[in-house]
Amino acid sequence: MAAEYAFGIDLGGTTVKCGLFNSKGELLESWEIPTRTEDNGRNVLPDIAKTIRDKVKEKKLKKGDIEGVGIDVPGPVLDGGIVNQCVNLGWGVVNVKDDLSEMLDGIRVEVGNDANVAALGEAWKGGGKGYSSIIMVTLGTGVGGGVIVNGKIVSGSHGAGGEIGHMTVNYDEEDTCGCGKKGCLEQYVSANGITRVAHKRLAKNKKQTVLVNDDTLSSKKIFDAAKEGDEVALALVDEFGKTLGRALASIAVVVDPECFVIGGGVSKAGQIVLDAITKYYAPNTFHACRTTIFKLAELGNDAGMYGAVKMIV
Amino acid sequence: MAAEYAFGIDLGGTTVKCGLFNSKGELLESWEIPTRTEDNGRNVLPDIAKTIRDKVKEKKLKKGDIEGVGIDVPGPVLDGGIVNQCVNLGWGVVNVKDDLSEMLDGIRVEVGNDANVAALGEAWKGGGKGYSSIIMVTLGTGVGGGVIVNGKIVSGSHGAGGEIGHMTVNYDEEDTCGCGKKGCLEQYVSANGITRVAHKRLAKNKKQTVLVNDDTLSSKKIFDAAKEGDEVALALVDEFGKTLGRALASIAVVVDPECFVIGGGVSKAGQIVLDAITKYYAPNTFHACRTTIFKLAELGNDAGMYGAVKMIV
Repeated sequence: MAAEYAFGIDLGGTTVKCGLFNSKGELLESWEIPTRTEDNGRNVLPDIAKTIRDKVKEKKLKKGDIEGVGIDVPGPVLDGGIVNQCVNLGWGVVNVKDDLSEMLDGIRVEVGNDANVAALGEAWKGGGKGYSSIIMVTLGTGVGGGVIVNGKIVSGSHGAGGEIGHMTVNYDEEDTCGCGKKGCLEQYVSANGITRVAHKRLAKNKKQTVLVNDDTLSSKKIFDAAKEGDEVALALVDEFGKTLGRALASIAVVVDPECFVIGGGVSKAGQIVLDAITKYYAPNTFHACRTTIFKLAELGNDAGMYGAVKMIV
Repeated sequence: MAAEYAFGIDLGGTTVKCGLFNSKGELLESWEIPTRTEDNGRNVLPDIAKTIRDKVKEKKLKKGDIEGVGIDVPGPVLDGGIVNQCVNLGWGVVNVKDDLSEMLDGIRVEVGNDANVAALGEAWKGGGKGYSSIIMVTLGTGVGGGVIVNGKIVSGSHGAGGEIGHMTVNYDEEDTCGCGKKGCLEQYVSANGITRVAHKRLAKNKKQTVLVNDDTLSSKKIFDAAKEGDEVALALVDEFGKTLGRALASIAVVVDPECFVIGGGVSKAGQIVLDAITKYYAPNTFHACRTTIFKLAELGNDAGMYGAVKMIV
């Protein structure tokens, strides 16, 4: 980039994470402000504009010093930076690109969906560093995804690029996903999905296990117990790996990425997660894709800020 | 493009289809030469170079009149135009881009995989005209695919972009696919796959049907009978649509194309093919992708030539 600095903004449902970066993509400083979602989120963009202006003033930056502002939002982003229905922010249709730019004296603004932008961040500075085509899978409360081809986000014609949490993997499922369908990947391999499956298995379980079938059950406890060799937990981890490994095997033949990056809270369990996935990935994918690399995400909650600024630099 | 003409070459296992195009992408003339696969296909590229030189001479073209040569090949193409293992041509690793360019006085050559290039052709001048992001599915002897995002082929990091014929759709299949896996999409919805399934269903069938369970059974006969209201044929078409519609519903959330283009011999049955697919597509995909458009391919066997020249113009 021509100028010396850029901002990367990760706009979440409760907090806005803000980063000031230099032209090398190094994070110089980060801070947070609350996301004020009241009144249909009308304060969200003005609050972001204000915190950027305050930082510019504090650092005594001039307009020409700043290349622009990259921002991610928790909702579908259409071409032209228009955001359509950010439920978590109370937004309907908002032209984030133009509106935020106007609040900041016409500075360049680029907008992306949060899961896609996190994927871009991981491809640039995280687990996918060195690869130009990656698919990131974020295993959090839900399952997010981001597809990066030749260094660019594939946002999709309806803003649904990388929405792999909602591919159907079980046509016999009876429970309904948050999206309204049944049998979505998210219902099995998100943190909530893993515990949902575990509750069902534990209700019928007759083997000895350290897992307790109550409200304290979590995906972390399941992976921890599996690491200790608990047989029931190991079977649950294997089931997780089978569902996700098969799904990624199907996805691989669409864009044939160099690398899958696995992130989100569930991925904190570490290598056991990758081992469970790859056990079922390789035998179920096209032979040319069998050597695709699997990596854990590395940037954690900062991935959004990094990816946001990458849209600018 | 700067120059007035370009060549589009579709290199198949038995025939090379050659096209001379003008700068608007209009096909001025097309002709064929045989593909000489003997001696590990060592004559293939020299033969193509010769037929291009002959046409240049015949038309009295000068070097500056020709923008370049686009060519597709029946095998995986890696970055840099290197072709790896074209089994049908007897080739191992061949640097098509550099070798063909050298045979033609250093003219610009671009290379792509045949299914991907056909998709590019359909996106440019065929069923996907007007859309910049499409997925093409070619239902022929096998199932080929091509993914076009923002007007560019997604060839993939191992040349396997768009190899959707080999996504696993049935983990209980006992027959083996040509690729070595079991349960590939191709085993159900290619021309061969449709008749394979039909033979199995007819062996157990007790209903009246015009379909005959012998060597003359074909996907064309099945679709023809379904159009006449034959109940068994209608059930087979429904099964075809269910398998392919569900698979495309899963694929849609990866790159979220504007349009699916359905081509290959099976697609000649027409609207009944699209109707069978879309019946199962919409209810099984993410809500944002439900309005994705389905079209029949329009260029037939010329799609490769058009896509090949599109890589140049």
